[in-house]
Amino acid sequence: MLDRRNHHVFQPLLYQVAMAALSPGDIASPIRWILRRQKNVEVLLAEARLIDPKRQVVILTDGEISYDYLIAATGATHAYFGHDDWRPLAPGLKSLEDALQIRRRVLMAFERAEREPDAVRRARLLTFVVIGAGPTGVEMAGALAEISRQSLARDFRHFDPGSSRIILVEAGPALLAAFPAPLQKAALTDLQDLGVEVRLNSIVTDVLPGRVMVRDGAIDAETVVWAAGVAASPLGASLGVPLDRAGRVEVEPELTIPGYRNVFVIGDLASLDDERGKPLPGVAQVAIQMGRHAVRNILRSIEKQPMRAFRYKDLGNMATIGRASAVADFGSFRLTGYLAWLAWLFVHLMNLIGFRNRLLVMVQWAWAYVSYQRAVRLITGDEPPPAP
Amino acid sequence: MLDRRNHHVFQPLLYQVAMAALSPGDIASPIRWILRRQKNVEVLLAEARLIDPKRQVVILTDGEISYDYLIAATGATHAYFGHDDWRPLAPGLKSLEDALQIRRRVLMAFERAEREPDAVRRARLLTFVVIGAGPTGVEMAGALAEISRQSLARDFRHFDPGSSRIILVEAGPALLAAFPAPLQKAALTDLQDLGVEVRLNSIVTDVLPGRVMVRDGAIDAETVVWAAGVAASPLGASLGVPLDRAGRVEVEPELTIPGYRNVFVIGDLASLDDERGKPLPGVAQVAIQMGRHAVRNILRSIEKQPMRAFRYKDLGNMATIGRASAVADFGSFRLTGYLAWLAWLFVHLMNLIGFRNRLLVMVQWAWAYVSYQRAVRLITGDEPPPAP
Repeated sequence: MLDRRNHHVFQPLLYQVAMAALSPGDIASPIRWILRRQKNVEVLLAEARLIDPKRQVVILTDGEISYDYLIAATGATHAYFGHDDWRPLAPGLKSLEDALQIRRRVLMAFERAEREPDAVRRARLLTFVVIGAGPTGVEMAGALAEISRQSLARDFRHFDPGSSRIILVEAGPALLAAFPAPLQKAALTDLQDLGVEVRLNSIVTDVLPGRVMVRDGAIDAETVVWAAGVAASPLGASLGVPLDRAGRVEVEPELTIPGYRNVFVIGDLASLDDERGKPLPGVAQVAIQMGRHAVRNILRSIEKQPMRAFRYKDLGNMATIGRASAVADFGSFRLTGYLAWLAWLFVHLMNLIGFRNRLLVMVQWAWAYVSYQRAVRLITGDEPPPAP
Repeated sequence: MLDRRNHHVFQPLLYQVAMAALSPGDIASPIRWILRRQKNVEVLLAEARLIDPKRQVVILTDGEISYDYLIAATGATHAYFGHDDWRPLAPGLKSLEDALQIRRRVLMAFERAEREPDAVRRARLLTFVVIGAGPTGVEMAGALAEISRQSLARDFRHFDPGSSRIILVEAGPALLAAFPAPLQKAALTDLQDLGVEVRLNSIVTDVLPGRVMVRDGAIDAETVVWAAGVAASPLGASLGVPLDRAGRVEVEPELTIPGYRNVFVIGDLASLDDERGKPLPGVAQVAIQMGRHAVRNILRSIEKQPMRAFRYKDLGNMATIGRASAVADFGSFRLTGYLAWLAWLFVHLMNLIGFRNRLLVMVQWAWAYVSYQRAVRLITGDEPPPAP
């Protein structure tokens, strides 16, 4: 098991670290600890640079490792659609470091507002733009609204945090594109009730320091979060097989790559259509099921049995908007509001790794529900505080 | 309330963050949140650069603030006794950033050892030196021994973490200098039982990359932690009044500075002798009591009453060595072992701020006691991984 990080992060709750509700340690576990009982597994902290399927080696930044079978699951990263200069101005959310950076920027904006005598500049500090209204964008916009309206309500003396503007900008005609229309509508209403301004059909044309340009005008905002595009990890390109438009590896139905029956690509790095010809979504469920399937195919291959085609079993789709508010689509039935939120809490708690993390997250959610607080409001890290 | 950080850290548990037992959010609280109900308190995130008692202003890095009364409590920082080049090689433990850096270095040493084929280099990676055997040094050495002997026992495939060497280097003739001799002896025995090599009367003459020079030889060690010296914050020097050898402000018995009855200096920044002529120690109890006393004297001054001299009430002294092992000196009676450890747990839990943090820390301590694990073993932060 090669990973350039020593920990596994439960991505669906990463936004709660960015939004000061949970600590990094609550949603992450050391990979070695997860695999400590598998004595035949070796965990190495290493960064893969290239895969050479002909020589059957993974080339690291500091050496190489040969394999009999390989599963590549390096996932996706942010994509700025060719505007890499937007990256430092509008950070995305993929790692714990990203989450702590967003947390620092959001909290620092409020701190600077407290010391800002100029009303125009203060308004810019109190405007937060989230670009992209998929589940992560919706969750962050909802959380930002709750932070400003609830958690910080009593904390400042020179402005009302409730006057903050949270603007969710989406290029498409609806938020939560993967959900059925009634749930999109429910999520929109809930977000607006929280005080989020949702701008649909609104394409971002530029991100500048302190300003986001959208096609129909400019938004003055100090803090911008990117939740719009993902691109596959560059490792896929080194395989020398066809990629799709987002850089994902077009895998065979067995999850192997063309020409190599011992190299599997899964998760966000893989591109595969379901039986109806629709591409599989880049969600955790697909990655988890692909992982299991790849392992089964390796075992079948070792036993000289034919590999089987992957079939995705869609277990449903959920997104949370805020306190007691979520949408859940289980195909045969749909939930909104409080019930959907309870389902979301349950599913996410159960999918955390280890009893300790489940217990800690549960305790903190219960405390937050009672207190309306977000306790992990720490500005940490060595980024110098921006000049006021 | 001016602070250059937005959070208050409960320093006595900071080593548990460095040793991967707790998350930063468990021992820190936003200052605004602590003071949210005091409507007449204004919290500002700002860094004080100088104090000008003549003009009655605090000069910030970005502006200045005038005062009627001032309490300076900027504490202490690491002192390297004139060897500031040791600082990057042997980080100390004062802030959350320091703790995360030490955590990263300790965990990274084990990760690099797993990939190190050379036995000599691997031994250097698995040698940890703690310089200074005060409470923090003792606590860290004990925790490092537990990490290597217990928490990581099943995690590696190419070496036995139990073969790690933990060396506690102390210049003086005893560890825990502030404690009575029988407790020093108990702590020494407990540390040695954990497998810590304690070197007393051992003066560090140089810290080099991968090597610590002590007077009687060299120790090859990749990871070095500094727990030896503290120096007062440089803010005290700007007051223009006499300082002691460690740079602390020599305060009047009322905690004011000579010549200014409206400027108070407290905590680690203040130098004051008790009634027997012994200098007050730089511990939390002194700082907390001084804080209360300074406020009372300000109120008395406003009411035109004479100020009162500060008297320290010593509530006792504790240090923990590890699991079920601590020493506690309450003057009239002393505890060691399990009982001292329970007392330590209780006192530290009660002194945390807020119900949430108390509950979270208690849950994690209970889990760690049962599992022998340290769950927050995350290598995070943007320091580039050192070349193997």
